[in-house]
Amino acid sequence: MIRIGLVGYGYWGPNIARVVAELETTELTAIADYSTPARQRAGRRHPSAHLLSDWRDLIKSADVDAVVVATPVDTHFDIAMAALKAGKHVLVEKPMADTSAHAAALVDEAARRNRVLMVDHTFVYTPAIQKIRALIDAGEIGDVYYYDSTRINLGLFQRDVNVIWDLAVHDFAIMDHLLDADPVAISASAAAFVPGSPENMAYLTVYHDDGTMAHLNVNWLSPVKIRQTLIGGSRRMVIYDDMQTSEKVKVYDRGAMVEGDPGYEHRVSYRSGDIWAPALSTKEALLTEMQEFVRCIETGARPLTDGLRGLRVVNLLAAASRSVRLRGQPIELVPLREAS
Amino acid sequence: MIRIGLVGYGYWGPNIARVVAELETTELTAIADYSTPARQRAGRRHPSAHLLSDWRDLIKSADVDAVVVATPVDTHFDIAMAALKAGKHVLVEKPMADTSAHAAALVDEAARRNRVLMVDHTFVYTPAIQKIRALIDAGEIGDVYYYDSTRINLGLFQRDVNVIWDLAVHDFAIMDHLLDADPVAISASAAAFVPGSPENMAYLTVYHDDGTMAHLNVNWLSPVKIRQTLIGGSRRMVIYDDMQTSEKVKVYDRGAMVEGDPGYEHRVSYRSGDIWAPALSTKEALLTEMQEFVRCIETGARPLTDGLRGLRVVNLLAAASRSVRLRGQPIELVPLREAS
Amino acid sequence: MIRIGLVGYGYWGPNIARVVAELETTELTAIADYSTPARQRAGRRHPSAHLLSDWRDLIKSADVDAVVVATPVDTHFDIAMAALKAGKHVLVEKPMADTSAHAAALVDEAARRNRVLMVDHTFVYTPAIQKIRALIDAGEIGDVYYYDSTRINLGLFQRDVNVIWDLAVHDFAIMDHLLDADPVAISASAAAFVPGSPENMAYLTVYHDDGTMAHLNVNWLSPVKIRQTLIGGSRRMVIYDDMQTSEKVKVYDRGAMVEGDPGYEHRVSYRSGDIWAPALSTKEALLTEMQEFVRCIETGARPLTDGLRGLRVVNLLAAASRSVRLRGQPIELVPLREAS
Amino acid sequence: MIRIGLVGYGYWGPNIARVVAELETTELTAIADYSTPARQRAGRRHPSAHLLSDWRDLIKSADVDAVVVATPVDTHFDIAMAALKAGKHVLVEKPMADTSAHAAALVDEAARRNRVLMVDHTFVYTPAIQKIRALIDAGEIGDVYYYDSTRINLGLFQRDVNVIWDLAVHDFAIMDHLLDADPVAISASAAAFVPGSPENMAYLTVYHDDGTMAHLNVNWLSPVKIRQTLIGGSRRMVIYDDMQTSEKVKVYDRGAMVEGDPGYEHRVSYRSGDIWAPALSTKEALLTEMQEFVRCIETGARPLTDGLRGLRVVNLLAAASRSVRLRGQPIELVPLREAS
Repeated sequence: MIRIGLVGYGYWGPNIARVVAELETTELTAIADYSTPARQRAGRRHPSAHLLSDWRDLIKSADVDAVVVATPVDTHFDIAMAALKAGKHVLVEKPMADTSAHAAALVDEAARRNRVLMVDHTFVYTPAIQKIRALIDAGEIGDVYYYDSTRINLGLFQRDVNVIWDLAVHDFAIMDHLLDADPVAISASAAAFVPGSPENMAYLTVYHDDGTMAHLNVNWLSPVKIRQTLIGGSRRMVIYDDMQTSEKVKVYDRGAMVEGDPGYEHRVSYRSGDIWAPALSTKEALLTEMQEFVRCIETGARPLTDGLRGLRVVNLLAAASRSVRLRGQPIELVPLREAS
Repeated sequence: MIRIGLVGYGYWGPNIARVVAELETTELTAIADYSTPARQRAGRRHPSAHLLSDWRDLIKSADVDAVVVATPVDTHFDIAMAALKAGKHVLVEKPMADTSAHAAALVDEAARRNRVLMVDHTFVYTPAIQKIRALIDAGEIGDVYYYDSTRINLGLFQRDVNVIWDLAVHDFAIMDHLLDADPVAISASAAAFVPGSPENMAYLTVYHDDGTMAHLNVNWLSPVKIRQTLIGGSRRMVIYDDMQTSEKVKVYDRGAMVEGDPGYEHRVSYRSGDIWAPALSTKEALLTEMQEFVRCIETGARPLTDGLRGLRVVNLLAAASRSVRLRGQPIELVPLREAS
Repeated sequence: MIRIGLVGYGYWGPNIARVVAELETTELTAIADYSTPARQRAGRRHPSAHLLSDWRDLIKSADVDAVVVATPVDTHFDIAMAALKAGKHVLVEKPMADTSAHAAALVDEAARRNRVLMVDHTFVYTPAIQKIRALIDAGEIGDVYYYDSTRINLGLFQRDVNVIWDLAVHDFAIMDHLLDADPVAISASAAAFVPGSPENMAYLTVYHDDGTMAHLNVNWLSPVKIRQTLIGGSRRMVIYDDMQTSEKVKVYDRGAMVEGDPGYEHRVSYRSGDIWAPALSTKEALLTEMQEFVRCIETGARPLTDGLRGLRVVNLLAAASRSVRLRGQPIELVPLREAS
Repeated sequence: MIRIGLVGYGYWGPNIARVVAELETTELTAIADYSTPARQRAGRRHPSAHLLSDWRDLIKSADVDAVVVATPVDTHFDIAMAALKAGKHVLVEKPMADTSAHAAALVDEAARRNRVLMVDHTFVYTPAIQKIRALIDAGEIGDVYYYDSTRINLGLFQRDVNVIWDLAVHDFAIMDHLLDADPVAISASAAAFVPGSPENMAYLTVYHDDGTMAHLNVNWLSPVKIRQTLIGGSRRMVIYDDMQTSEKVKVYDRGAMVEGDPGYEHRVSYRSGDIWAPALSTKEALLTEMQEFVRCIETGARPLTDGLRGLRVVNLLAAASRSVRLRGQPIELVPLREAS
């Protein structure tokens, strides 16, 4: 039984708490939030958990084996670092930290102390993304040509982060899981149309070392909500539409190929075959994710979404922010994956 | 009665010929195409038109007042320039020319000879785009924040031009018509996944002098066909979906606004009102366009899609190509609109 | 403050309990359910309510002013009748009773004792149906020609009732609210394809005294979920699609009309104007409904969905069942509305 | 080479003419139409065909081996009977005749003279319906439970026939091809909301000897165009949506089954597996159909849509009309299929 302490009971924290309480391998022993109404809500739902106003007390607690950090981004580093130093295992909300240096320091600290450091890239644990990963592994897609995502809606304007740190972070996490190539450069353009608010729309292009192209369209000021990702491959193509209830993932046996001698007298021909929407598990992603956290704590295994992955995503976010300031100037990325 | 000579009877030429034959103010007197089967097809449909294998003979003809050029892009300049020099009015397929220098030379020649030079930006004449322009003129949209277009399908791979010159040209023409701001820079990324073929997918961002953001997603290698443009404004937003038959243009009374003092303790609030799909005329765009050509020939008026507009679009295409070669490096644009 | 006792804490009861607890004008004083796990769930969510295993004890309680009956259909009559006889106001789940005689007896008893008898026709209180009613009242639709509803899905097979009593009941309640005409005959066909289960699909046609046609397609064995109602009128038509999130109600300025002398040399011409999706309130229907219950208890007013309406709907259900047994034979209906 | 004479060059005739002219095994030798403008249009497109104003002259012609009848329904019998008596093979527009007696007389005459009598049930030759038939033959669907079709739009009001004879005829033809059971009764309700015009909306239920249920919803006065057919089976379900361009046929691995002892303590469980949209041929249905006509003329084979099938469809139409007059009263059908 892993005893979990949760820091932050705002928007996402209650979901974490519910799953920790449901699982038979975890126990929710403490919840910290500086807000009194938040602690009252937490108490009504989880009467057996200790309620604390200061996260430092939670981290000191001997009743806590592992800490889940579900607070605003700019507090992640302080809390997670303190927890690691106190010998706790740590699961941090995405993005893992507000700067690459902070993220890297967390990775180092976890390695030094041999603690599990995991980042809450929830989409990686959804049945849809797991099915797409399985299709890629089985060679069904062939070489991945592109990843093209539209993630727009009339949305909650965040005050502390812009639309890239709020929405593109999901795609960076998914791409890091699905694409086998390393990003080598990123170009991003953004605009802020609501005065006094951070950027509310952005377009990002990520170049990879094998030529794979990734593109993200994120927007808080769209009249309609779209959550659609196209993945083009040499053998098949996939559309992942998260707004659909029954056909979230569709596989298209479609493509183009060259006949004859490329470059000379060639013809491009098309293949337009069957379309297939595989049935998906209905298991909740957060449940799968929490089980992974428990498994890694118990076995010492490296989590699927470990600190290094969290660091890579923060690096992309930071590079995107730099490119925005240079109006789309491509920013070269140091290949981190090999470094691991 | 304007006597029209048509050069090129391939993919688009037959549509031009049909409309010229239908109109009461025009007469199709000659058709030139170097291909014998093309001339045979033309002869069956338009038995009263002279059939010529060499466009030079068509341009020399005394029976031709105006020339429509519907040939591959790299031949536009030679044919159009010769026609202008022969004193003919000219309507050229889009894009107007293969280089900015060629496009500018055509504009100059037409001005010098006082001939009508018009470019076939067909979308500008569609009921959908005309309705959107009317909505903008009436102040219904407010300030335009962004133009975001997705124009993808499993498409005909062109041999002579890439996907930007084939598909993005439509959006450049539409933007030039709808947006009152001037483009100041463009950033474009592209990839070619079919060996020996030109770029088949591209992402383009266009920056404007008033902050309006434009973005284009064009792709010949998509599993599905999408023709969707979002236009975000300070008062309302528009979705133009050309794949819809009955609701091509939808107006959303939605947006976000700041309450209180911007930058300090402010709140962003949302407006989510009615949605409205105005009825659109069913008149064919090409018919409207040809009537505009006739009107300008008869009155000396400047066409809605005149040579200068054709030049501006070619400038954007050329700058996009430069940016692609620099992997998304933004290219500054000389403000042409003021120059006119 | 109205003190509410809830009988039945199964599928729908928890929603009632939540709304009663939320409202400032109601207090949830008692919950009765024969199932121990159900009472335990109820106790965790509503610790201040008395938990009873026998509904007879709840009805006897002096702490209860009004009773909400959320139990299986065949128990409605016994519980509601006992509650009325004990002087309580009563709100009953739909359908109000299992037979017309039972429903009529409840109406009589409530009238005799001057108690509020209300039926939980939830859809009547949805913003969508209220908007459509308002459009009809404003003359926007003109004469209603037809009501055509498709309510199908891969559904929960009920054991106690067939698909007509489970799904068509919603449309009967909506029709009773929206249509000003009286039903005069009903024809219904049904089939049972899962052995040992009640009818899982049915088609119903309801004829009205003014010629309005209503048709229902209900099915538990459809591959997809559809909740779509078309309402055709002489001036406009409406589509109510409950699966849509943002355009549940769409108004079409479309129709056909005769030009010239009807019956002789006439032409039918079409009108195809704007489409309009009015913004809808986001208020929960159950909340509106409970406020109506409170208002009627406090003022003695007749509820929008009173017992007589509940009786009319039960009459339609019973007649539909008879028609099914006669393989679609139309069943004449006694006009009840005038009788009120 | 089969020499074809076409009677009727109105709405559908030009399509027949085009296909006959395209095929290498047929020659369009004569076209008859009483309308002078129709003959002029025919002459421009088919200059080598003889143009006749009286169909009697076409039938007498020695240059005609087979006659295609594309005229209004109430003229089918006279023309087709005369053609058969003149020894011609005959292909008749659907519905084959205006009464069952007329249809039966044509079948008899064709049999007596050993001529091919074929009816133009075009949908039977579409790739979509052929794929569904193949799925049924392969046992993929299992037992067919129901056929549920919605065929509505804001439509062309016919003057001579009502919406049943105009639209339901398509479904009757499709059902006759897809369902192996025999219809035993039909119930139909209809309404006419445009004064002086025939019924513009109807609901039809067809009962079959094996319990298969069929239902048709046809309407000329719908705000939207829907062409959707659900086919439910014991193993899988199919949705055929003719408005879709790329997923016209979708196969759902979904259903319900009883676990345990039916009738006693049983549970209904659900299966929700993959969804699959098979690629369809792009061959034009009319081309396939005309090739079938030629094949049968050359080999003496019985056409897939022979006169008997045409008669069965007319019988259903006639029975539906009777039921409408009796306000939905079910009409028993004589089982014709066995008689063949």
